[in-house]
Amino acid sequence: MERTVQQVQSLFSNVRKQTEDICLPLKPEDYCVQPVDDVSPPKWHLAHTTWFLEQIVLQRHHSSYSFYHPTFQELFNSYYQGISPKPYPRNQRGTQSRPTTQEVFVYRQEITQRVLELLESYPSDESLRRHVEVAIHHEWQHQELLYMDIKYVLHAQEMLTFYREQVLSDSSPSSMQWIDFSDGLTDIGKNLEGEFSFDNEGSRHKVYLHDFSIAHRCVTNGEYKEFVDAGGYQKPEFWLADGWHWIQHQNIRQPLYWSNHENQTFEYTLNGLIPLCSENPVSHVSLYEAQAYAQWAGHRLPTEFEWEHAATRIAPSNQDHFVDMNLLHPVSLDAHSRTFHGNLWEWTSSAYSPYPGYQSFEGSLVEYNGKFMNQQYVLRGGSCVTERRHYRPTYRNFFFPQQRWAFCGFRLAKDGETR
Amino acid sequence: MERTVQQVQSLFSNVRKQTEDICLPLKPEDYCVQPVDDVSPPKWHLAHTTWFLEQIVLQRHHSSYSFYHPTFQELFNSYYQGISPKPYPRNQRGTQSRPTTQEVFVYRQEITQRVLELLESYPSDESLRRHVEVAIHHEWQHQELLYMDIKYVLHAQEMLTFYREQVLSDSSPSSMQWIDFSDGLTDIGKNLEGEFSFDNEGSRHKVYLHDFSIAHRCVTNGEYKEFVDAGGYQKPEFWLADGWHWIQHQNIRQPLYWSNHENQTFEYTLNGLIPLCSENPVSHVSLYEAQAYAQWAGHRLPTEFEWEHAATRIAPSNQDHFVDMNLLHPVSLDAHSRTFHGNLWEWTSSAYSPYPGYQSFEGSLVEYNGKFMNQQYVLRGGSCVTERRHYRPTYRNFFFPQQRWAFCGFRLAKDGETR
Amino acid sequence: MERTVQQVQSLFSNVRKQTEDICLPLKPEDYCVQPVDDVSPPKWHLAHTTWFLEQIVLQRHHSSYSFYHPTFQELFNSYYQGISPKPYPRNQRGTQSRPTTQEVFVYRQEITQRVLELLESYPSDESLRRHVEVAIHHEWQHQELLYMDIKYVLHAQEMLTFYREQVLSDSSPSSMQWIDFSDGLTDIGKNLEGEFSFDNEGSRHKVYLHDFSIAHRCVTNGEYKEFVDAGGYQKPEFWLADGWHWIQHQNIRQPLYWSNHENQTFEYTLNGLIPLCSENPVSHVSLYEAQAYAQWAGHRLPTEFEWEHAATRIAPSNQDHFVDMNLLHPVSLDAHSRTFHGNLWEWTSSAYSPYPGYQSFEGSLVEYNGKFMNQQYVLRGGSCVTERRHYRPTYRNFFFPQQRWAFCGFRLAKDGETR
Amino acid sequence: MERTVQQVQSLFSNVRKQTEDICLPLKPEDYCVQPVDDVSPPKWHLAHTTWFLEQIVLQRHHSSYSFYHPTFQELFNSYYQGISPKPYPRNQRGTQSRPTTQEVFVYRQEITQRVLELLESYPSDESLRRHVEVAIHHEWQHQELLYMDIKYVLHAQEMLTFYREQVLSDSSPSSMQWIDFSDGLTDIGKNLEGEFSFDNEGSRHKVYLHDFSIAHRCVTNGEYKEFVDAGGYQKPEFWLADGWHWIQHQNIRQPLYWSNHENQTFEYTLNGLIPLCSENPVSHVSLYEAQAYAQWAGHRLPTEFEWEHAATRIAPSNQDHFVDMNLLHPVSLDAHSRTFHGNLWEWTSSAYSPYPGYQSFEGSLVEYNGKFMNQQYVLRGGSCVTERRHYRPTYRNFFFPQQRWAFCGFRLAKDGETR
Repeated sequence: MERTVQQVQSLFSNVRKQTEDICLPLKPEDYCVQPVDDVSPPKWHLAHTTWFLEQIVLQRHHSSYSFYHPTFQELFNSYYQGISPKPYPRNQRGTQSRPTTQEVFVYRQEITQRVLELLESYPSDESLRRHVEVAIHHEWQHQELLYMDIKYVLHAQEMLTFYREQVLSDSSPSSMQWIDFSDGLTDIGKNLEGEFSFDNEGSRHKVYLHDFSIAHRCVTNGEYKEFVDAGGYQKPEFWLADGWHWIQHQNIRQPLYWSNHENQTFEYTLNGLIPLCSENPVSHVSLYEAQAYAQWAGHRLPTEFEWEHAATRIAPSNQDHFVDMNLLHPVSLDAHSRTFHGNLWEWTSSAYSPYPGYQSFEGSLVEYNGKFMNQQYVLRGGSCVTERRHYRPTYRNFFFPQQRWAFCGFRLAKDGETR
Repeated sequence: MERTVQQVQSLFSNVRKQTEDICLPLKPEDYCVQPVDDVSPPKWHLAHTTWFLEQIVLQRHHSSYSFYHPTFQELFNSYYQGISPKPYPRNQRGTQSRPTTQEVFVYRQEITQRVLELLESYPSDESLRRHVEVAIHHEWQHQELLYMDIKYVLHAQEMLTFYREQVLSDSSPSSMQWIDFSDGLTDIGKNLEGEFSFDNEGSRHKVYLHDFSIAHRCVTNGEYKEFVDAGGYQKPEFWLADGWHWIQHQNIRQPLYWSNHENQTFEYTLNGLIPLCSENPVSHVSLYEAQAYAQWAGHRLPTEFEWEHAATRIAPSNQDHFVDMNLLHPVSLDAHSRTFHGNLWEWTSSAYSPYPGYQSFEGSLVEYNGKFMNQQYVLRGGSCVTERRHYRPTYRNFFFPQQRWAFCGFRLAKDGETR
Repeated sequence: MERTVQQVQSLFSNVRKQTEDICLPLKPEDYCVQPVDDVSPPKWHLAHTTWFLEQIVLQRHHSSYSFYHPTFQELFNSYYQGISPKPYPRNQRGTQSRPTTQEVFVYRQEITQRVLELLESYPSDESLRRHVEVAIHHEWQHQELLYMDIKYVLHAQEMLTFYREQVLSDSSPSSMQWIDFSDGLTDIGKNLEGEFSFDNEGSRHKVYLHDFSIAHRCVTNGEYKEFVDAGGYQKPEFWLADGWHWIQHQNIRQPLYWSNHENQTFEYTLNGLIPLCSENPVSHVSLYEAQAYAQWAGHRLPTEFEWEHAATRIAPSNQDHFVDMNLLHPVSLDAHSRTFHGNLWEWTSSAYSPYPGYQSFEGSLVEYNGKFMNQQYVLRGGSCVTERRHYRPTYRNFFFPQQRWAFCGFRLAKDGETR
Repeated sequence: MERTVQQVQSLFSNVRKQTEDICLPLKPEDYCVQPVDDVSPPKWHLAHTTWFLEQIVLQRHHSSYSFYHPTFQELFNSYYQGISPKPYPRNQRGTQSRPTTQEVFVYRQEITQRVLELLESYPSDESLRRHVEVAIHHEWQHQELLYMDIKYVLHAQEMLTFYREQVLSDSSPSSMQWIDFSDGLTDIGKNLEGEFSFDNEGSRHKVYLHDFSIAHRCVTNGEYKEFVDAGGYQKPEFWLADGWHWIQHQNIRQPLYWSNHENQTFEYTLNGLIPLCSENPVSHVSLYEAQAYAQWAGHRLPTEFEWEHAATRIAPSNQDHFVDMNLLHPVSLDAHSRTFHGNLWEWTSSAYSPYPGYQSFEGSLVEYNGKFMNQQYVLRGGSCVTERRHYRPTYRNFFFPQQRWAFCGFRLAKDGETR
């Protein structure tokens, strides 16, 4: 179903505003800081998503496009070597006080306006619409990154600081059940025709799955705490060699946002510091921690193919827990989460690799996904800070195994009984 | 077919001697040095393979085993946390002059003798034989590592130094041909019953392959040099992001053992420094370099499943180029290499992950393979420094993508025409 | 001459305001960033000088002092182990967006008020006055650091950014002359009685000087550029071993704030980017660069004793170039600089060591100076961003030999003819 | 008193042999390893002292000297940029197995012979004799370095390994006494005429000393252990800021060669592992530790000028403890050490800086001392592994403040009563 120009314009304007609204609770200083290399200052996201519009939409569709500011070309280039050979170093983003946040907002407004006018001028340009669509999805990705980075930034403050303070409703316990699947061929990935998807979701292809079972929900805080209390972080036999080295070297003893005060464990959330809720799924764990827990529990993580095969048996619904629920924290099954879609990104055991028949996007977008297919691992399912319209069951998110500032958890799997 | 005790003893003695014979051309000083963290001093390999016998064979089968020397427990432990919690740091191996090489040879002799006596005492102990078999395969792995490490050590000398000087016969050109395969299910991996294999080769399972074509031989020095001469190392568009960062940071511009003198390219080999032979396969390249070449050439690397499917169509033969050919350098197709087995380890695009139904070895050997299944990539095929009896077509070797001191090359693949 | 309470209050209020006025040209974002470890965010200086008042003045003179905010105790502690054993890590200061700048200004106002009231309550408490006096000098030090750090921060912006734009008057050339001194005993350092001085300036003691000559002015940009143009940064024979390693490793080829555009050299200043003025003294050079220039020129740097002996022959005057001249950049002799006092801190060849009879300040202030007497070198003379009332000819500033973001230059010396 | 050619030849031959004799107890492997960057493989010293003869003696006095081996020029160059711009990296010395130790001994023999022949040919060449004299002193320096490095190498072995095992005679306690000195001018340093000295000992110049007292002996193990037992390494108030950071970062809790077994403290020595002797002077401490002890004890370290002034009141004698006593370990006063000369190098508080009128050696030797006059500190007195004929009371040894593998200790000083 085709959107009208007005619908596209409206969606685009709405998305641009969404991004800015996420930052409303921030103080001016919060926009600028970069506590670790992985986390970009919020101001940078505001500027980069605008830079992206200039590069991907405006420059391509204007005959002789004049960029807003010459310095922005490098400064807000994330990693596109084809656009500028020396993108400003990622780990230095927190040193740049200029342009100011206010100047970035002006930049945003101006470029948003230019895109709206371009759409107005070329109402039936299909290529233009496709590029705007990519840009919208790109901006949705950065909205999720903003939630991740803001959470990390505020947590990094010596002064206890919150994004907001809000009470989440109670959760009720749910004992884990296995869903069983028989062996056979399954179809994986997205056909590039039709609905939007990223290049890394194609081509659609067959995968043979052996008998397997997968948990009906993610591992909970309560379950994970048993692993912690059993000395899980002190026993190398559960850990991958690199994971063991990582927790030793970084002195890691629990999930990223847990802390202990007087024999009680608390969790730092976008809603404040709350006592750890046993029924909620464990979040902000690395793949190493997920894998070690699974090893300790006598099971394993699912492959991304098992996950997709199981997940697509249940269509996404309005009950799924995405960012529009406005909880900003993963909750237990009986609240808003439904089985596979939303709530938490789930680590899989699958390395992030090209599918058979993979064709990258063209032009500058060739660098969007393919060049990162190395040593990262796939996460599936979307999260409580993911835009609902951005999600698809075939969506492949990816991080390095030690990264855990995304809203990520995991569910268990096991081989079928016959094996 | 069962071996007699005498046959096992004879094989074992022979393998132990093989290891020592590899070191014969070394000077006493060459046994001790460690030019980079990855490369262990030859003396360490001689001791570690002996330590392994104490841990895996003697201790398990002696009621109250008394270790040869208390300090050796940690000093020659490679990475087994279950055996000693603080294995001596890998990157410090080159600082240990003691025990001396002579003392290590005495240690070897003593432990070899103890194993032979144990076999004599328990002629029908199946478990003992299996452990000796593992130890033999372990020693064959370290024989290959000795060739790799000795090559690196001697190459690292400011004084031009060779393992030996020997002229290799001429090679003749062979233009690359594609072998085509149709889609369908294939069986991958080794059934754990019967012939020896490592745990990571199982369980045997089905994989669905789409139409693909694979090269009948590896990429040659001549072909790879075209890539170098075309500025391949200066163009980020061919490289994975991590690969590009690696070649920039390490200032890498060609394969590990190439050097240039007066407009000619030479290759450092175990047979001396020789002008680059265009027909021989390119070797000692990282996965990053292999992937970049494939990208430049418009193709891709095969998965390990495509590789195994193709390789097992041709059974290993006595013509395959393994270490007993005594060339110690990969050669072109028309010399000793045949299609897939031997000559060079070949990078695949497959991450090193557990197969469906994977069951690790038991006891201390649980750490043999499984804990390394993270961020490494699979190589297949054995090499000119691999023991022939150690090789199987299902053998999965693995290295990190930047490592290239193994005898490794690669062959191209592509999707079938129908995609 | 004793000040009245009102005079002390007035001076104190004035100094507190001075600090804030320095920051007036900054944008909110500029207060927060830390481009390198050495450079603190301006907001941090505003808070730390206030923290200092709580620690040194309020806590000591209130019977039961209640600190403004518990977190500030560690967060704004620069390095006083005696006050809190884990001062917040210096290199992380730029990650703290909270408290906000506005909150810091409120903090300042409140603490300033508390100090004023304390002075009011105890008009004849000598100890209180002495501590306020130390705090005022401490704040003057940080005013200079603010100029240094703001200059570095703004220079680190990819977008060309200035503190202010102001034209400096022209300079006229002045050829260097030697001032000769005969050998003999001289008195060095400050008697701790009377006028304020830091502990490191005492005790006053005798030093025997041999015949020497010292330049009547600092080395100029023009003179230094000859060294650069003569390949000075490419010739190891002029450099200390550590200095040579430093320029190689950091790829340093000229003073910190120099840049080259189309065959012209420019200098980044607090007044804008200006063409290099040959007559002005070279500034923002390291001790290594100063020493290499001197070596190249066939001379040496003065010791701090030679410098003080020469400098104290000319009393400081109102013509000396300190921050109240409001030039914020070193100028040539014939403008505002007079011989030794003001304009630029001058590197000496003297290691920063305790004088004979050195007695450190007491209490927390024991950590003010003494614990840094290691591997740093003394600079003398004050600079164009130094408060005039903070300066004394016996003042010993100190930095590590590679640090050059202070307003520092150097003058030459040589042994007397008779040697 | 002039030596005859035969006397020079004999001395030279003897010194060359001395060097080799030091290595006699080593196993072949011990010659090659480099446990830390500071410590060179013994083989390297054997080669470097020979390289030095080629560079400083043979090349200068042969009309067209042909070097022994082209690769040696860089490989055994320690740091002389003027001789080869890329001396082989210091921290890689332990990776070079070639040339072998045997080849190095042949190199030594050949070059020794060439020097002897040169002396024979030019019996009255004064310049030649002076250069041979420098080379002899250079070789004596490396003999001491050999003892230091061999001790470190053998101590770094996981297997308990000794240079030799020898019982030292008992020591008797000696309570510390102060020697008092009145203020006045003193003469410091060596006149360059006459007896051999290094360039850094000149020129002889006047220094004014204030009243001071200096201990009649070094701080003992027993005294230092009180500091350790009193928690000295846990209390920042005694430490220089850089020293505190160093012990925290390196987890240092006692002198380098101390170890604790079942509530007893042992000391690793060249004579074996021995229970800590309370009466012997503490050795192998850094300047940071020496300074912290002095601070804790309420005193300070002497300056090098105070030390020299005190030391030269007592002429060196045959009773002084140098290497020819063959104890290879510092002992208490009543055994072999006399007051100031020999036994242990003593840290002073003086930065290593040029004396007034300093003139460096000429030619390649310009790099011998001057370029290291940065951030290092002076030690005085010679040690139990110093060649007696190499020592002078004006001798200035120098190390960085954290280095402690030299045979170094310290004595206390304090200001005179009148201050």
